[in-house]
Amino acid sequence: MNHINIGIIGLGTVGSGVLEIINKEKEKLFTETGIQVNIVKICDKDNSKLDSKFHSMFTSNWKEITESKEIDTVVELIGGNTVAYEVQKSALENSKFLITANKALLSEKGQELFALAKSKNVEIGFEASVGGAIPVIRSIKTGLVSNEFLSLYGILNGTTNFILTKMEEEDMDYFEALSLAQKLGFAEQDPTFDVEGIDAAHKLSLLCGLAFKQKVSIEDISIEGISKISKSEIKQAKSLGLRIKLLGIAKKTEQGLELRVSPIMIPLDHPLASVKFEMNTIYFETSYSGPSMLMGKGAGSLPTASAVIADILYYAERKINKNSALENNLFEKGKIASSKETEARFYIRLKTVDKPGVLGLITNILGKNYVSISSIRQNESLNEPVELIILTHKSKAGNVISSIDEIDKHKDIIKEKSIYLRLEDFN
Amino acid sequence: MNHINIGIIGLGTVGSGVLEIINKEKEKLFTETGIQVNIVKICDKDNSKLDSKFHSMFTSNWKEITESKEIDTVVELIGGNTVAYEVQKSALENSKFLITANKALLSEKGQELFALAKSKNVEIGFEASVGGAIPVIRSIKTGLVSNEFLSLYGILNGTTNFILTKMEEEDMDYFEALSLAQKLGFAEQDPTFDVEGIDAAHKLSLLCGLAFKQKVSIEDISIEGISKISKSEIKQAKSLGLRIKLLGIAKKTEQGLELRVSPIMIPLDHPLASVKFEMNTIYFETSYSGPSMLMGKGAGSLPTASAVIADILYYAERKINKNSALENNLFEKGKIASSKETEARFYIRLKTVDKPGVLGLITNILGKNYVSISSIRQNESLNEPVELIILTHKSKAGNVISSIDEIDKHKDIIKEKSIYLRLEDFN
Repeated sequence: MNHINIGIIGLGTVGSGVLEIINKEKEKLFTETGIQVNIVKICDKDNSKLDSKFHSMFTSNWKEITESKEIDTVVELIGGNTVAYEVQKSALENSKFLITANKALLSEKGQELFALAKSKNVEIGFEASVGGAIPVIRSIKTGLVSNEFLSLYGILNGTTNFILTKMEEEDMDYFEALSLAQKLGFAEQDPTFDVEGIDAAHKLSLLCGLAFKQKVSIEDISIEGISKISKSEIKQAKSLGLRIKLLGIAKKTEQGLELRVSPIMIPLDHPLASVKFEMNTIYFETSYSGPSMLMGKGAGSLPTASAVIADILYYAERKINKNSALENNLFEKGKIASSKETEARFYIRLKTVDKPGVLGLITNILGKNYVSISSIRQNESLNEPVELIILTHKSKAGNVISSIDEIDKHKDIIKEKSIYLRLEDFN
Repeated sequence: MNHINIGIIGLGTVGSGVLEIINKEKEKLFTETGIQVNIVKICDKDNSKLDSKFHSMFTSNWKEITESKEIDTVVELIGGNTVAYEVQKSALENSKFLITANKALLSEKGQELFALAKSKNVEIGFEASVGGAIPVIRSIKTGLVSNEFLSLYGILNGTTNFILTKMEEEDMDYFEALSLAQKLGFAEQDPTFDVEGIDAAHKLSLLCGLAFKQKVSIEDISIEGISKISKSEIKQAKSLGLRIKLLGIAKKTEQGLELRVSPIMIPLDHPLASVKFEMNTIYFETSYSGPSMLMGKGAGSLPTASAVIADILYYAERKINKNSALENNLFEKGKIASSKETEARFYIRLKTVDKPGVLGLITNILGKNYVSISSIRQNESLNEPVELIILTHKSKAGNVISSIDEIDKHKDIIKEKSIYLRLEDFN
């Protein structure tokens, strides 16, 4: 009989979900895969949260798992990059297969850890680290193996997608929506990691290796969060048939890989626009398979546990047969496009005085910087400042930004710092 | 070195795509998977469409492939259920791994063919048979292995989705959109198979086995096509914030599996509503992973070939190591819900005379049949008949249909056969 002995380290949200599902579905998993999953040891700081029937397996010393002769596969679900780093290194050094949901650690130290795994002839499963329940890593590695990736757009962070959805649907401002997200447990007390786009960037860096076969670190990514998005932008977007999403974007360009995490306006009828609340999505275009999208729950106890267990069984099958095809995670550095050189359509919002000549001045500055205007709109208003909305044709980001900097210097006519957002119409 | 020798039978749209990609990407595939794919023989009726560099591999006798000692894996891309059936049987009898995109044959004869494969200790890969490029079969088999499926909704046929999209976006009627689809190659000259929902039902039956671990044949599915959908329904749907999609649906109910292919109205802001033209999608809910959606190109030469090649390599890796876990495709019959017993919300369109008492009569008949009305609308009109739009609360389909039959008998007030459609709000 085929079986696998696992040790789980970390009993937070995801760890307790893994324990719950394996315990409940042991028989089903065996019937469907032919592999019996035995939980041998469970480690956490203390066993207070642990059902008493598991107390005999409990240890507070993670080395009893990573160094155990009996255990084949270590499931690291502590998260973060301190203890978890020690745990992962020790597990691999002891030639254990490793399953994890730890995107921050793999984004930072992945190259070292994957190399260590390779040298020990073991493998690391990290399906749960990107897109929670969505089988995106497996799909890229196997389902799309013949394809070259051309572009990838991800809604990779549930917290920010929840906030943006609430802002639009319930007319909340950013801070209201954020504190609701905190109350409901979708956002941490210190939300910086999520709202400033860092979590999304960690995930994007992991996806990019696999999709573009190129080593990407978080430093290569232009990162912008959603904290500057106001109700007013949300409404403007809507009136233009658009919706604002925080997207992680990777695009092959002649200048190299364009890498960005930032709020982007997308057409309301694009499938990405329909992804609401805490859902995550990866949309991509490849050489042969055409545009595709994978959507699902990006976080939460059971959805993430579902991906962890899929990995446990997938790698158990590989371990039993030992074959390393399709499992390379080590990539070389490639060309990265400079953010300013990338091209996009832009939405620009200016607050100006209502005087003759203002429009001429603005359009002149844009024209001089090779930014071509696709549409311009000024709503009638009795009070100053008046709001001017400009949509551009595809233009170099650097040119758009210098234009706005130049426009904003005219303090006599510009009454508030101008705002710009990229607009993605997927054409 | 790991390698696999394949023979391709059938050089139509998909077959020539497979040949093109393998020929172009041979080196990439080897680098990324460690497996070298050798095309040993190619079979079609004649070699007129075949690039001369492949002529030395050509045969018009498929037995030279299925019975070849040299070949490990037969790629059957003829389609249909006549010659393809003989080819598949012969390949399996000769202990070849089999890769195919043939949904009609697997839906009809899958149980026999999967059993034959099992008895010969070989496997059948059919990722390309459902959802083209979308890695849906692999995702169900591995990524979601711990989950119980609760429901599955698929846009499984690109032709009908193309027609419905054109009808809405360009205000075409059904026959205009159909003939455009034929002109563009999205529909066959005899479109019955697609427009009457049979192709979608074949695919649904294949998905249901894997998702619900239950044998489903096409006879178990209530099938309705899109040929009765008129411009008027498309417009009504839109004005209600809804969109009509041809969905393949499987839902666990207390009465058994509810199985249906039919046009359904869905909310405009549901992700399924954003799936346009020839795209395919599978949306599902499971016990742990929550709602998820996989979208991509459902047909076409290169997208389908991309899935065929993913299967060739996936099974090559399995073949080299021979392990049958996760590859069961044989299921027992389970409980199937009777279509009339299933519950849904309904959209009903009646054309009536404009007289006192008409509304009373209609609502009485519905009430008597336990059909509860959620909203009712009659637009002001100078001419008879007037159009009455009713949305119901969740009601038994059988009750709704008997109500409408009874209402339609009142020829004095009902001026045209009434129309009903299911309405899915995913709640």
